[in-house]
Amino acid sequence: MAQKPSIPKGTRDFNPEQVAKRNYIFQTIQSVFETFGFQPIETPSFENSETLMGKYGDEGDRLIFKILNSGDYFDKLNKSLVEVIKDSLHNILIFIKKTGSENINWLTYKEVYLNFIPNHIKSNKNIQLTEEKLNYNQLAETLWFIIYDGFLKTQEKLNQFIDEGDSRIDDFATRVFGSFYFNFSSVHVSDYITEKALRYDLTVPFARYVVQHQNEIEFPFKRYQMQPVWRADRPQKGRFREFYQCDADVVGSNSLWQEVEFVQLYDAVFSKLKLEGVTIKINNRKILSGIAEIIGASDKLIDFTVALDKLDKIGEEKVKEEMLSKGISEAGISKLQPLFNLSGSFGSQIESLKAILSTSKEGTKGIQELEFVHAAITELGLSTATLQLDVTLARGLNYYTGAIFEVAAPKSVQMGSIGGGGRYDDLTGIFGLDDMSGVGISFGLDRIYLVLEELGLFPETVTKSIDVLFINFGDKEALFSLKAIKALRANGINAELYPEAAKMKKQMTHANRRNIPFVVLVGEQEMNSNTYTLKNMVSGEQKTVSLDELKNLKK
Amino acid sequence: MAQKPSIPKGTRDFNPEQVAKRNYIFQTIQSVFETFGFQPIETPSFENSETLMGKYGDEGDRLIFKILNSGDYFDKLNKSLVEVIKDSLHNILIFIKKTGSENINWLTYKEVYLNFIPNHIKSNKNIQLTEEKLNYNQLAETLWFIIYDGFLKTQEKLNQFIDEGDSRIDDFATRVFGSFYFNFSSVHVSDYITEKALRYDLTVPFARYVVQHQNEIEFPFKRYQMQPVWRADRPQKGRFREFYQCDADVVGSNSLWQEVEFVQLYDAVFSKLKLEGVTIKINNRKILSGIAEIIGASDKLIDFTVALDKLDKIGEEKVKEEMLSKGISEAGISKLQPLFNLSGSFGSQIESLKAILSTSKEGTKGIQELEFVHAAITELGLSTATLQLDVTLARGLNYYTGAIFEVAAPKSVQMGSIGGGGRYDDLTGIFGLDDMSGVGISFGLDRIYLVLEELGLFPETVTKSIDVLFINFGDKEALFSLKAIKALRANGINAELYPEAAKMKKQMTHANRRNIPFVVLVGEQEMNSNTYTLKNMVSGEQKTVSLDELKNLKK
Repeated sequence: MAQKPSIPKGTRDFNPEQVAKRNYIFQTIQSVFETFGFQPIETPSFENSETLMGKYGDEGDRLIFKILNSGDYFDKLNKSLVEVIKDSLHNILIFIKKTGSENINWLTYKEVYLNFIPNHIKSNKNIQLTEEKLNYNQLAETLWFIIYDGFLKTQEKLNQFIDEGDSRIDDFATRVFGSFYFNFSSVHVSDYITEKALRYDLTVPFARYVVQHQNEIEFPFKRYQMQPVWRADRPQKGRFREFYQCDADVVGSNSLWQEVEFVQLYDAVFSKLKLEGVTIKINNRKILSGIAEIIGASDKLIDFTVALDKLDKIGEEKVKEEMLSKGISEAGISKLQPLFNLSGSFGSQIESLKAILSTSKEGTKGIQELEFVHAAITELGLSTATLQLDVTLARGLNYYTGAIFEVAAPKSVQMGSIGGGGRYDDLTGIFGLDDMSGVGISFGLDRIYLVLEELGLFPETVTKSIDVLFINFGDKEALFSLKAIKALRANGINAELYPEAAKMKKQMTHANRRNIPFVVLVGEQEMNSNTYTLKNMVSGEQKTVSLDELKNLKK
Repeated sequence: MAQKPSIPKGTRDFNPEQVAKRNYIFQTIQSVFETFGFQPIETPSFENSETLMGKYGDEGDRLIFKILNSGDYFDKLNKSLVEVIKDSLHNILIFIKKTGSENINWLTYKEVYLNFIPNHIKSNKNIQLTEEKLNYNQLAETLWFIIYDGFLKTQEKLNQFIDEGDSRIDDFATRVFGSFYFNFSSVHVSDYITEKALRYDLTVPFARYVVQHQNEIEFPFKRYQMQPVWRADRPQKGRFREFYQCDADVVGSNSLWQEVEFVQLYDAVFSKLKLEGVTIKINNRKILSGIAEIIGASDKLIDFTVALDKLDKIGEEKVKEEMLSKGISEAGISKLQPLFNLSGSFGSQIESLKAILSTSKEGTKGIQELEFVHAAITELGLSTATLQLDVTLARGLNYYTGAIFEVAAPKSVQMGSIGGGGRYDDLTGIFGLDDMSGVGISFGLDRIYLVLEELGLFPETVTKSIDVLFINFGDKEALFSLKAIKALRANGINAELYPEAAKMKKQMTHANRRNIPFVVLVGEQEMNSNTYTLKNMVSGEQKTVSLDELKNLKK
């Protein structure tokens, strides 16, 4: 390999400084999670495809990284497939010769399946094709489509097939096999060559975990999870194909006290990170539903919320235009006017909403929920964050059913949201466990990192190097030094010996490049007097110390 | 989805207790790594395939998990491929008709490439096929083989091709396309549909990292890395498809002081884990080479070491039989006899080896290296581990060039090695950076976990639940409780409120099931007197306390 190696686009190497800073954020979040009673779980990096597929919409399915089956499965699939094709062609030929070709155009897939798919495929459960993913009916449909198209569609083709079929079965089979791959290509073939996929988020694996382990879990279950996820998104600035998610969720209770707790949790984490002045925005899906109901657009709730969500970015006029274009009536939109003028305190906004939503039962319920959370937070107080009602907040996510959260960085920093979450009444329904309400929030690690970096909020100690480097003057000195190093390490001081008796200058340069604050020099004289020459690399100051003094270097 | 969801075989979910115990091991190892001056890096979960393939032998290549390309690449590949095939068939027909068919059997691949592969493929760098992985010459070879086999091999086929070629080009193309997939199947097609693969170990990505970032790294570079790796191995007891590796390596120095440091590091980690009595086995590749030289089997070094490595398991006689069967002479094997009788202290074993290896320069060098490490460790002392010479230790790894390490659990536990490593003189050579010596060790997390579990060495505090649960008697009481909870959390006490005003019994059961040591009850009376009823869930004792007393619960 001549050229310099590289990593896949959208992925990152992290150097020691970056790892240390990221761990500082992780550990801060983790310690607050635990103070609040959340417990960690971990799930595998890859899940069975059927666990993930269909859970994130078509776009999501496209962005899921699929893992190729290992071994020579593809090879076996191909060989079995060609056999099946040959046998099917045989059966079709026999069928035509016996019953005539008149009715061939009117066969159902079931008849095709029964008549043409070889018996050993239908009956033998041990054949590779059936063992794994190849669905009988789907295979029958696919093959029939190709065979029909290639041989039976026109009288001319049909005649050729009847005339030459017996003698050229291998030829024809290869042609069908080629068409199979060509017509069905990636989407179709993928089903046969991959059955595992990389985690796309932490919510679906968590739902799977809860259902799978429901008998071992004590509900309500407060879990946190900090693991990487992978998305085959187009890489661009700030968007990666591998990134960490940090989620906390409670499952198994409807209590609004949990919403209160999550607001406190956000406040606690960002306060502990010294990131003061974040805004915790809150909304409620029921309010959005209520508004849609009031303006006669209940059937267009998604279009309506998607448009409203853009208010910040494109402004009132464009939002109205978009709503109109989606078929929301002029009259309906005019009823929204008070919404666009909503401002002032949480309380006064609530009052305006009450007026707008007085006739909507669901909207009123949403207001009550918001009021509950707001009243509790007002009473309990927040350390450095502000709770703010944002009725435009929708987060484009269809599954929230109650509270919706989003956290904005302090206004001095240009950055999108640094966290978000909400309540979803039926978290585990996709896996067959109904009536499990969940509510959770998530922290955006990469963006929090950028914000802390920009505001200079990483503590200096996070990225510090080792405390002291012992200069190596030769094997005797090195051994003497290692005895001291052993004592220092036992005392919690990070210490090391330069591994070689290189030139003094080289070793000092090494210490400087690594920002090591102290070096120790041990020569003949020090060994004889059982002392150490300690040099402060910042001040340049140098003094002779005892081992005891050295061990208390950091005090 | 009706049936209960599951996870792929060979993978694991970790529940809160397991995560806590695993983190305890990680954090212990990490803290020692840092005390010794190692710095963390992280690399992406997947690498470009060419970074990993060919680095672990054929068996390794087979066990690497490959990631399917995303998007409709497969689809585009197929469509382009069929176009290329059609154009090639056209070109071949024209060629045959113009120059006759006599010489078609004698064309070189280069001529095939020049004459038949369509110009737009050869010249247009933007065509999907060329942009990505499809190699011109490989494609030309592949296609030519199939076309030759299908149409040109026998006179009869050739005539058919010449007669019918023009009118049935689509038919023929599909047949070639089918043959392409069929003949080359998984191994071949994989090249075109996957270009990323999951990390198989941490060593190769580390080597890649060092070469890629060589200009930013200050050498010698001491790095540690604790990340999962994936292997498509047959899952079985104790062998997983996803597992963590914890590695520490130094790159960029030949100093033997590093071997000394790694022995100390193993001792420090296992002592800190309270896992006393581990044996750190050490050997040296140069000693194995020296012995092979002495017995005249230098060309059979691998066979020789593989056999010797089995001494523990199959005994002296079987080892000798295996050596004989591999072509090592009787005379040579008889020279090994002192080796089989090697016992006693490190020092006396060294003396025996010196006698055996006196005429081998390399063997003598190996002995000197071992003596250096042994002398230093004897002088420095180990806390709880024992250093032991094991001349049969080879670890089956071809890339070690100097020291070889392996750690055995205390004899009271039946368990394979719980760690291992060694020196490899040319770590980064595979990526084009020569003369970079590396030495490193690794910890076997899963086995260490099992050993600590078996010996009951996990500290109780590791898996403790929250400290205190506040019983929920209603919204007013809950709000009062949350004020106390806020104060407790600020004081480092893990506290939570039961989210609903459920029946008292249900809430107490919840506390018991989660092993929560204390619950607090707050009713009308407590609110009025600003006190809290604290119940010890172990002793059953119950008393009235103030907030200040509550805040000092853990003292």
